[in-house]
Parts: sequence; structure tokens; C-alpha cells
Amino acid sequence: MSAAQAHLIETTPQAYGYPLLIKQLLHSALATAPDQEIVYADQRRHSYAEFDRRIQRLGNMLRGLGLQPGNTVAVMDWDSHRYLECFFAVPMLGCVLQTVNVRLSPEQIAYTLNHAQADVLLVNSDFMPVLKQIRGELNTLTRCVLITDDGTPAPQGPGFAGEYEALLSQAEPVCSFPDFDENARATTFYTTGTTGLPKGVYFSHRQLVLHTLSVTAGLALAPQQGRLHRDDVYMPLTPMFHVHAWGLPYVATMAGLKQVYPGRYVPDTIVRLIETEKVTFSHCVPTILQMVLGCEAAKSADLSGWKMIIGGSAMTSSLAQTARERGIDVFTGYGMSETCPILSLGQVPTADLGTGRDVATRVKTGRPLPLVALRTVDGEMQDCPRDGSSTGEVVVRAPWLTQGYLHQPQASVDLWQGGWLHTQDIGHIDQRGYLQVTDRIKDVIKTGGEWVSSLQIEEIIARHPAVAETAVIGLQDGKWGERPLALVVLKAGQDGKVDSEAIRRHVMAAVDSGQISRYGVPDKVEFVSELARTSVGKLNKKAMRESRQSRS
Amino acid sequence: MSAAQAHLIETTPQAYGYPLLIKQLLHSALATAPDQEIVYADQRRHSYAEFDRRIQRLGNMLRGLGLQPGNTVAVMDWDSHRYLECFFAVPMLGCVLQTVNVRLSPEQIAYTLNHAQADVLLVNSDFMPVLKQIRGELNTLTRCVLITDDGTPAPQGPGFAGEYEALLSQAEPVCSFPDFDENARATTFYTTGTTGLPKGVYFSHRQLVLHTLSVTAGLALAPQQGRLHRDDVYMPLTPMFHVHAWGLPYVATMAGLKQVYPGRYVPDTIVRLIETEKVTFSHCVPTILQMVLGCEAAKSADLSGWKMIIGGSAMTSSLAQTARERGIDVFTGYGMSETCPILSLGQVPTADLGTGRDVATRVKTGRPLPLVALRTVDGEMQDCPRDGSSTGEVVVRAPWLTQGYLHQPQASVDLWQGGWLHTQDIGHIDQRGYLQVTDRIKDVIKTGGEWVSSLQIEEIIARHPAVAETAVIGLQDGKWGERPLALVVLKAGQDGKVDSEAIRRHVMAAVDSGQISRYGVPDKVEFVSELARTSVGKLNKKAMRESRQSRS
Repeated sequence: MSAAQAHLIETTPQAYGYPLLIKQLLHSALATAPDQEIVYADQRRHSYAEFDRRIQRLGNMLRGLGLQPGNTVAVMDWDSHRYLECFFAVPMLGCVLQTVNVRLSPEQIAYTLNHAQADVLLVNSDFMPVLKQIRGELNTLTRCVLITDDGTPAPQGPGFAGEYEALLSQAEPVCSFPDFDENARATTFYTTGTTGLPKGVYFSHRQLVLHTLSVTAGLALAPQQGRLHRDDVYMPLTPMFHVHAWGLPYVATMAGLKQVYPGRYVPDTIVRLIETEKVTFSHCVPTILQMVLGCEAAKSADLSGWKMIIGGSAMTSSLAQTARERGIDVFTGYGMSETCPILSLGQVPTADLGTGRDVATRVKTGRPLPLVALRTVDGEMQDCPRDGSSTGEVVVRAPWLTQGYLHQPQASVDLWQGGWLHTQDIGHIDQRGYLQVTDRIKDVIKTGGEWVSSLQIEEIIARHPAVAETAVIGLQDGKWGERPLALVVLKAGQDGKVDSEAIRRHVMAAVDSGQISRYGVPDKVEFVSELARTSVGKLNKKAMRESRQSRS
Repeated sequence: MSAAQAHLIETTPQAYGYPLLIKQLLHSALATAPDQEIVYADQRRHSYAEFDRRIQRLGNMLRGLGLQPGNTVAVMDWDSHRYLECFFAVPMLGCVLQTVNVRLSPEQIAYTLNHAQADVLLVNSDFMPVLKQIRGELNTLTRCVLITDDGTPAPQGPGFAGEYEALLSQAEPVCSFPDFDENARATTFYTTGTTGLPKGVYFSHRQLVLHTLSVTAGLALAPQQGRLHRDDVYMPLTPMFHVHAWGLPYVATMAGLKQVYPGRYVPDTIVRLIETEKVTFSHCVPTILQMVLGCEAAKSADLSGWKMIIGGSAMTSSLAQTARERGIDVFTGYGMSETCPILSLGQVPTADLGTGRDVATRVKTGRPLPLVALRTVDGEMQDCPRDGSSTGEVVVRAPWLTQGYLHQPQASVDLWQGGWLHTQDIGHIDQRGYLQVTDRIKDVIKTGGEWVSSLQIEEIIARHPAVAETAVIGLQDGKWGERPLALVVLKAGQDGKVDSEAIRRHVMAAVDSGQISRYGVPDKVEFVSELARTSVGKLNKKAMRESRQSRS
């Protein structure tokens, strides 16, 4: 820009500058939906007005524990009304909410609590064994609050301040939440890559408010498929610790929706809640959807009209088809821990509904939300053509991306090379703006001078009627650089009925029809009983590669 | 807040901080809807991709006129694709867009151009007579650009740089719009109260982006009635100069909607555009809706499914009923120039659709948008009960309210007394969060120790089958303080068939049924051929009062 500068607006001293703080999401919900319900499994239900009163008591309770703005409050709980209260009260005090990934190993949990300098821990009694194991290693923690469903008192002793519900009832009822800088840190979460120690991502009040507004707009603007509206009933099926359950609890609260929190994920309980509470909107990873569809209660349940964002891993066409046959309105959401997380949605335009493009669009990675600038670029950060086939790395800008990894400056610089957040995903964009991620940079198989997408081969193998799940990895090869290996889990009752050659012939048919290059046909197919996964349920291809490389 | 401060997020130097700038609204629209149409009456249609190219050329064209960030570009045009281009290109350069109210008197227009220090004026040839009249008084203006539909060249001479379309075609095709502070002023507009000189309100990039997101969410979240979605076709019927056509062109663009700009408002043309372009979403003041419904073309037109936000003045139940009978989905939007403008929407909850509460809800002032904190308060800024009847002044906070009046510090302090923007509207809020504005502070009639709402009496009189329009004002009275006078415009053919007593009896029936106090029955009813209005079509009660007081 030249020496001349745009003129900033003049502000009257009395005027309210309106920082974008999480507390501001409550205004319209409390004014318009004070009687709307928040439900915790079969344990409890109360109104938004009561939710507001509980937030205020929680604020006073946390202050009573000596917490100051800038301190960190860690939470280890299943998805609950209490977690939702923490989503609001903790950052509204100016404190940081650390949503602890309870699926990590105890050592990793200890690492993340120390790294985030957690001052207070709210811990569900189910995780007390973990806490006992690591308590001696926690350097910054001063107090704990026990969470139980049945009011069991907290253990006596210096570490525990008491039990959540008891402390809440003792706290003062009216809490004044102050204004402060919208760039204050509100939340911290640790990503669980397949390499190295967990890395902390963090989000400010401003970022969470903007994510909430844009996700709301992106969902609600859909003419028919994949839309959210005020009559929806929301239930998360991505854990609340996992990047704030994709931010949807903030969306649901701002919109004043009825909300249902399922506690620990038990498939039969989930199905019962969908039926009794008339849940209409959820989100989860493909594995959870498979788990729910496969449970006993689901067999007789009416799941039609249940809208479901699928993310975390790619949804296969066959899973989408199965869900559609049950009347579930599945579609893809895309993002990652670093991106708050949602960047794009695979909603189906009205003209494509029910056509051959319908399911194909639902499994696409999706179109960018408002304000999201999303590109696919080559190694020199030049744009790839938007032709639906030219692949490059997906890089993004949005007002809600982590501005770095906590206390990891070099990883932060790598993440933000050239001023764009590097997703490390490979994909292509078509003329209608749909992104299709084809692979992770590190999972692309380089063979015979070509790049073969492991996801694409997996998608093809998954269409074989005997296949339940599959993962394709590249193994080092002296001649070709790498060669694909397919790991296949067969459906129940299929063991011994399908052999390696049948799978290879199935893939070869896709070569013949021009879908993939012949380099993509796996040399070997290995039948396994399960696939290695990370703590959040994603395929752990690093572990798969390492165990096979060391064997060979 | 205590000495301890919330910790601001750490930022990596390479990370993109993402200022909320108007240019960022274009990302998702251009990526997902490049072929979507923008239509200018029956003159022109082009794609969003072409819209983007024209914005870039316009940016270069304006730079070529010597404009620097911080300079002001004023526009006098009817609603057009060109105005939409200015909505984006002018602020995207870091300049300020002054949307000139072409309905003001030439003297007032000259005052606003000088007060805003307009550097360049883009002027439709229809307003050349006005410009000629005031050119000598314009102290800051250096260059003009002529706007014509037929390409008529601009007048020769030092003042005119050329004609819009010709200059656009000569401009360089690629323009780089810089990043700058999101608090830079983007737009200025002059409000036209009934007292004093016009006052300038102003909005930053950040404010306009946040208004766009929240209005989108508020409209799109509606389950059925009053919702906006990506298949809608948008056409403004509030002039683009009037607080950015209520901000809806930014909403429509961000959402990638087909947009239709009608040029000068000609009722038959408007109806034809609705039919041929399949317009589904508009907004206007009650007068415009009446004008459209009353035109020849409307008689045979199918207007069903046309969604319409009504604002600026209260919509009467009878107008709402008439519109509903034509299938028009009318509902109220509330706000004012100072508030960007939208604060609340009178959408009907699903359960109330088609019931006795349906029309009653549409004419309510509405429920607050996300992020809007809206209160009714007494003189000590204490909240009135939310009981649907206790009235107080409406005061608001939102992230898009003008932070003052341009260069008017005392008026700015008055506007923002106590840190809340004072709307000067009187109203009440019910338990479901619906605001009902009952009057302007200055239009409340104080009689016999009671406050009588002039709007409520108007609403009652308007239900009389012979009445086309009415205004009720308070006239000074030695005994009662003030007494109401009703000015009534009768429907065509009703002259002489209805007398003053018939109207008074009609109001008395409402007293008998307990709707209003007996103090509200007008002493006199005066039949007139038209009601005095301000330049933007609102009832000018100040003028009505003054002409009657001086007579008496």
C-alpha cells in the first residue's frame, strides 16, 4: 500500500467497541430460546435459562479456586452438559480451556497437561485411574474438581476442591464476566499426528466467534440437503475434546437449538437418544457411523432424516450409500485440528439431488465456507488449474486458523510457509468449487515416476462386496521406488471365500475402465482382522508401514 | 478486570492474521458460483466471474483518477450492477464509499458531499441537473464520472474524467487490492431525520463483514418462514444508497445468489422482473410494497413465494394480510441508519405458521440477530420486564453500530449514553424475545397523564375498510397536555362515504374491547389526500404537527 492509509473509523469514547467474545454468542439464544432444552443422556435436562445460571455459578466456582485470567482449566469428561458449560464459562473468565484428549496414553496426557501449564483439572471419575497414574508428574496443576453422574463426593485431601455439582450449588449465583481483548486465547487442544509428540493448537475468542458465524451460514444457506435450522435437535458424535466437537456446540447454542449430549459413546444408547429426543443433526468420523449402524438397536430404529456431517477421514461411497439407504443425510465436512476445524462442506446442490452426482458430491471434500480462501498449489505456491483433476497441496486462509503450534516456533513456521496454512493434504478443485482431497502428502505412493493416491485405491477396493475396510500403503521397492500394499478387513463370514487375486482383479477392472493407472494395482493384498488406528480413530499408516518395512 | 490479564494468542510471523475486509466476502462466492448471474433490469446480465473482472477494472480506473486510500468516492445512481461494483471496489481500495441520498434536496446533497469531503463523484445522467445546480458549491470534489445506460459520452471539460463503461474498458484488467486495518472506514451515509441537517453515519470493513455474517445466519436459520438460501434470487427494493440497501447486496454476494438490480423503481418493471427473473427475495418499506401491489402489472402477476423483509416503518396488519393473500411472504426487519442497519427479524416459528399468531408475528419488530444485545430500559437504564407489555427505550449493542456521527461529537455522545446505542424507539419485549416497537420517543402522545402510542392507534384506524393510510399525531392541548389528531387518506372511491364520526366510532370499539385506553381516541379526524413524508418515504410527523399547530 502507498504512503496514504485508509482512514480508521472515529470512535466516540462512550461507544461500545464490541469485542468478539464467546459470551456474545449467548445474547440472542437467551433472549429468544430461554425455554429450549439441553439434555444429558438419560440423566438430566434443563433449559437455556438454567444453562445460563449454571454458567454463572461455574464462573464463580472457578474464581473461588483462585483462577485468574490467563490461567488454564483442563477438562477430562465425556460429552456432557457440564462440558458445554465449560465451553462457555472457562473462556468467559479470560481463562484457557484445555480439552484433554482422553484417548491418549497416560504419558501423553501428562505431557499435554504440563505443556499447556494446566492449573486446574475437571476430571470425570472414569479417568481417576489415569490421573492417579500421572499425578506425580503434573508440574503445574494445583487443584482438581471431580465429575460424577451420581454425586459421589471427591476424595479428601489437598488436591481435590470438591465435586462439580456440589461446588456449583455452593457458588454465588450471579457472575459478571468482563470484557477483554478478543484476541485472548480461549481454547487449547493437542493434535495427535502419527509422528512425534502431540502439538498444541490454540484459538482466540475472535476466532471461535467467526468460526461459529461462518459454519452457521455455510450450513444454514443450503437450500435442501445438509442444512441446519432452528427446529433441528443437535447431538455431537465427535468428542467435545476434539477441536470443540468441530465447533458445533457453539453453533447450536448461538442458534438456540435443542441440544443432546450423549455421555460416553455407547451405540445402543446413541440410537435410543436419536429416537427419544428426536435428534436431527450430528457429526462424526466414519468409524463411529459404522459402529452406530452396526449396533443391535440400529437394526429396528428409524434413522431417516438424521443429518450427519462426516469428517476426520474420507467417507467412502459405499458407506455413504449404506447410510443413504437408512435415510441418513450424510455429507462431508473437511478440516483439521489446526483449522478450528471446519473449512468446507460437501453439500449437494438442489439440481443434483437424487441424480448420479448425489452420492458422489456427498463424499467430496466440499466447497469452502464463507470467508475461506482455499487453493491447491504446486511446490512454488502457484495455483493448480481448477479442472477437477490437477492435484496440488491444499493451502488455506480463514479468520479462525491456529496462528502456530504452542511453543513450537519451527513447526509453526513450517505450517505457515508463504502466509498460507499448509494442510499437507493433496487434492484438486473443480469449476464448481468442490475440493476433492486425494491423499495426505506423506501417504501418496510414488511408484514408477507416478503419484498414486492411496485413498483412491482404497475407495475402489472398498466397493468389493466382501470388503469391510481397507488401507493401502506404499512400501519401499528397489525397482519402482514404492509399491502399494493393500491391507483388507473382510466382512463377517467372508474369511477364506475371497483371495488376494480376487481383490487384485477387482482393482484391475478399475484400471481397464480408466479410473486409475495400472501402477496403482497393489502387488500384494494382506488380509487382517483390524487396521492400526491413532487415538482419534484415524488410520495409522505410519504404524502400518513401519511394521511391514521391518518385517521385509 | 483484575491485574491478571487474559493471554493473547501467540502469532507466528508468517501466519496470515486475516483482517475482516470486504474483499474477503468474495472468496467463497467466486470459488463456488463463478457462473451465477447478476442482472441489471432488462439492460445487462453477466456472471460473477465477470463481476470480479469488472471490480478489478474499476479498482484500476479509480486509481487512475488519482484516488488514494482514505479518499472518498460518492455515488449517485439507481440500483444497478455498477453500484454493486462500487460496494466492493471502492472500499477494497481503502477508499470510502459515500452512498448519496438522491432524494434529498440539492442543497442537502451539496452539504453531505462537502461534509464527507467527497473527492470523486460517480453520477447517473439522470442527476446531472442536480449536479449542475450545486457544482459551484462543492468544495472538495475534483473529478466526476458519468453513468449512463446507453454509453452517452461524458461532457467535455476539466470536471469529467469520462463515462463509466468507457473508462472501465480502458482500465487495466488485473488489480491487486491490498490488506489494511479492518477498522478502516468503508462507507458513509447521511441520515435524514426530521430535524436539523443530515448526520453522517459510517461503517468499517469489520462492521460490514460481521453484519453480513450475522444477517445471513439470522435469515438462513429460519426453519420455514422468512428464510434465505442459495437457490434464492435477490432483488433490492430499498435503494442501494440507503444504508447499503440494508446490507443485503453483501449477503447475496457472499452467498453466491443470483442478483437482480431493478434500476429506477418503476412498479410495472419491478413486477415484470419478478416474473421473468424469478425473484424470490426482496426488502422494502411499506410504501413501496403498496406501490407494487397497486400497479397494473401486479393485478395479473403471480407473486406467490416472493419473500419480503419490510422495514423503515411499521407494517400494518392490514398490509401484511393483503400481501399474504397474494402469497407474498412478508415479515418485519428492524434497524436504522445508525445500526448498519439490521438488528432483528420478525420471523414466524414453525408452530405458529398459519395460526392466529402468524400475521401478528410478522408485524412484530422481531427477534434479535446473533450477537445483538437488545434491551428495553427505563430512564435509569434499568431493564424493563420481558412481559410483552412494559415499555421502555430500545437500546442495543452489536458489532456493526456506527461509532458516532461524523464530526458531530455531541450528537455522538448522546447516541451512545451509558455505552448503549439509543434508538429513540419505545417498545416492549416478550418472553420469546420478540420486540414490539410501539412508537418513537418523540411521537408518543402524552395525554391525561398517560402515554398513548400513535402507532397503535394508526394500526387500529388502518383496519377500517375505507382507510388507505393514516397518521396520528399529538397536538398541544391546554387541559390534557396533548390530544391525538388522526390524518386519514381514504381508499379510492370512498371520499364522502365515511365521516369523522365513523372513524372515531371504529376506534372506540377498540377501547371497548380493551385494546387501548380511551385517551387514545382522536378528538378530530382530518381527511387528507396524502401524508407528509421525509425524503426516504417515512411519515414526517414533525411537518404534520408544525403545519397543524401553526394553524390552530
